[in-house]
Amino acid sequence: MKLQHLFIQASLSLLILFSGCQFSQEQKTEEINSPSKHYLESWNEGISKSTIQEFVKKTTTVGSPDFVPEKDRIAVFDNDGCLWSEKPFYFQLAYAIDFVKKEAPNHPEWENSPALKSAMEGDINGILAKGEHGIIEVVMASHTGMTAEEFSQNVKDWLATAKHPETGMAYNQMIYQPMVELLSYLRANGYKTFIVSGGGIDFLRVWAEEAYGIPPYQVVGSSIKAKYEEVDGKKAIVKTPELNFIDDKEGKPVGIHQHIGMRPIIAAGNSDGDYQMLEYTTQGSGPRLGILIHHTDSEREFAYDSLSHIGNLKKGLIDGPGLGWVIVDMAKDWSQVYPK
Amino acid sequence: MKLQHLFIQASLSLLILFSGCQFSQEQKTEEINSPSKHYLESWNEGISKSTIQEFVKKTTTVGSPDFVPEKDRIAVFDNDGCLWSEKPFYFQLAYAIDFVKKEAPNHPEWENSPALKSAMEGDINGILAKGEHGIIEVVMASHTGMTAEEFSQNVKDWLATAKHPETGMAYNQMIYQPMVELLSYLRANGYKTFIVSGGGIDFLRVWAEEAYGIPPYQVVGSSIKAKYEEVDGKKAIVKTPELNFIDDKEGKPVGIHQHIGMRPIIAAGNSDGDYQMLEYTTQGSGPRLGILIHHTDSEREFAYDSLSHIGNLKKGLIDGPGLGWVIVDMAKDWSQVYPK
Repeated sequence: MKLQHLFIQASLSLLILFSGCQFSQEQKTEEINSPSKHYLESWNEGISKSTIQEFVKKTTTVGSPDFVPEKDRIAVFDNDGCLWSEKPFYFQLAYAIDFVKKEAPNHPEWENSPALKSAMEGDINGILAKGEHGIIEVVMASHTGMTAEEFSQNVKDWLATAKHPETGMAYNQMIYQPMVELLSYLRANGYKTFIVSGGGIDFLRVWAEEAYGIPPYQVVGSSIKAKYEEVDGKKAIVKTPELNFIDDKEGKPVGIHQHIGMRPIIAAGNSDGDYQMLEYTTQGSGPRLGILIHHTDSEREFAYDSLSHIGNLKKGLIDGPGLGWVIVDMAKDWSQVYPK
Repeated sequence: MKLQHLFIQASLSLLILFSGCQFSQEQKTEEINSPSKHYLESWNEGISKSTIQEFVKKTTTVGSPDFVPEKDRIAVFDNDGCLWSEKPFYFQLAYAIDFVKKEAPNHPEWENSPALKSAMEGDINGILAKGEHGIIEVVMASHTGMTAEEFSQNVKDWLATAKHPETGMAYNQMIYQPMVELLSYLRANGYKTFIVSGGGIDFLRVWAEEAYGIPPYQVVGSSIKAKYEEVDGKKAIVKTPELNFIDDKEGKPVGIHQHIGMRPIIAAGNSDGDYQMLEYTTQGSGPRLGILIHHTDSEREFAYDSLSHIGNLKKGLIDGPGLGWVIVDMAKDWSQVYPK
């Protein structure tokens, strides 16, 4: 229990400290009700699917008392555990450890750091045993002191080769097909889709577009500070080991305000770190929708949230139903978890 | 000269400290070469117009060696002096002074502050005489201690009634018609248009959409910190008197990185505060375009930048031509300045 708690703390500290992006892609604007395209096909019929469909219908039907002008249709999504898996630990932590392993030969001085030594040996518990300080050392070694372009390329190279220890899948294949369909369905109905993650904004920007159709400028996340300086005769953005913003808990509404500048109409998350984002969204006037992804599927994914207080989602499960939030039961509501 | 310099300093300090937004609007996507629509009609024929047109053509023509995929077509624009006027002083400062005048009756304690007293009397020099401290007092009184929604409404109310002291026009009518046409022309050619201003991000977000067709989430600017807290029984974003980010000079490439996450293809500005933004943009690989608006029109607008070192644009005028940047001569290149 203590380690679990320490781990959550440490992981959050880790996620705080990420930032570098490179490419982008226009959001595809799918034709509404295009006969050639089926939306939400990986969602089983039930209250979750019908509530989402009814909400989208009433907010996009001209003449409906709940009609929302397209300019106001903002939908925000958490990432870890909401759009892709987060077990056995945040994938960004796996990236940090793999980077330290790969670069260790070029950094003999890392041998003097117990945390970095543990990372070289892939000993996650050894890192966690050092607490936040250990995690931060691993993050700094893997995420700063390079240009945004270098960081971005490193993440791309890692995604192209790394495999998840339990599923053997590429990490960016472990995205939730039903959520990818939901993002697409919302965009087809005039919603702008944003990621609002506790994870590192630049780590996400490298692959979010290909995975979710969300361009770099619609990603909000935690970040470290950056500097504009000359590198190899050219001006570049250099990632520095100083915290800029923590996009978690009450930080999420603030991040939404600073980056998007509007109170969203729809918010989706999966942990109590998303509670304030859903609260901020659903307390707005007019129609609002809150969605919580409940990890109940131990066979196809990982089951780890329950009222028994294990996991990161408790307050949301207690308050959510009373607040009208949709609680998605992954085992029951999804016919498929990962893309085929 | 000294007061001029002090004023620039003070104004920058002021612009640093703004942040509140509310509504948005989809960018109109104009049909390319739509016969019913003429682009750049307020631009006179000449090297500035033809250079811009040729750049857009070569970056959007499939098969061209300089073709840029739509996902990478990012164009950034400074605001003050680039998209709307900035004389006799930044319009946001006029807002701050008018707000203090209006609210003074509710704040008898303001009588004890020389700077706020000057503001109440509309005595700009009296404020500037107090230096940065005076400006900051006026900013804090007019921009913090309220919710983002309250701030946004205050700015809307001001824009609906305030008139520019010299032209008698509403401030948001003093936008540059040729630049509005350029923004529209770029969007019609698949470019995403962003504002990257030293001004307050939330001040801009209130009116940028109506004026320029740029939604709140495509505005980057200076900001103050915000808090998520309960106000009148509802959770809201509250603007606090603490600096968050200065989006000026080397801060502009950093702001672009943090908000947009990509190196732009096109950058337009009008002062040396935009130099780094144009440098960062045009040093990118592949086709890049830098544009500097040179204030040369004393009859239709204000002439204040020249190599004689008066004004805010000097380094750009010296280096720009050699770097291939387009130097727009407002008097020669624009057939019209403000919308008719």
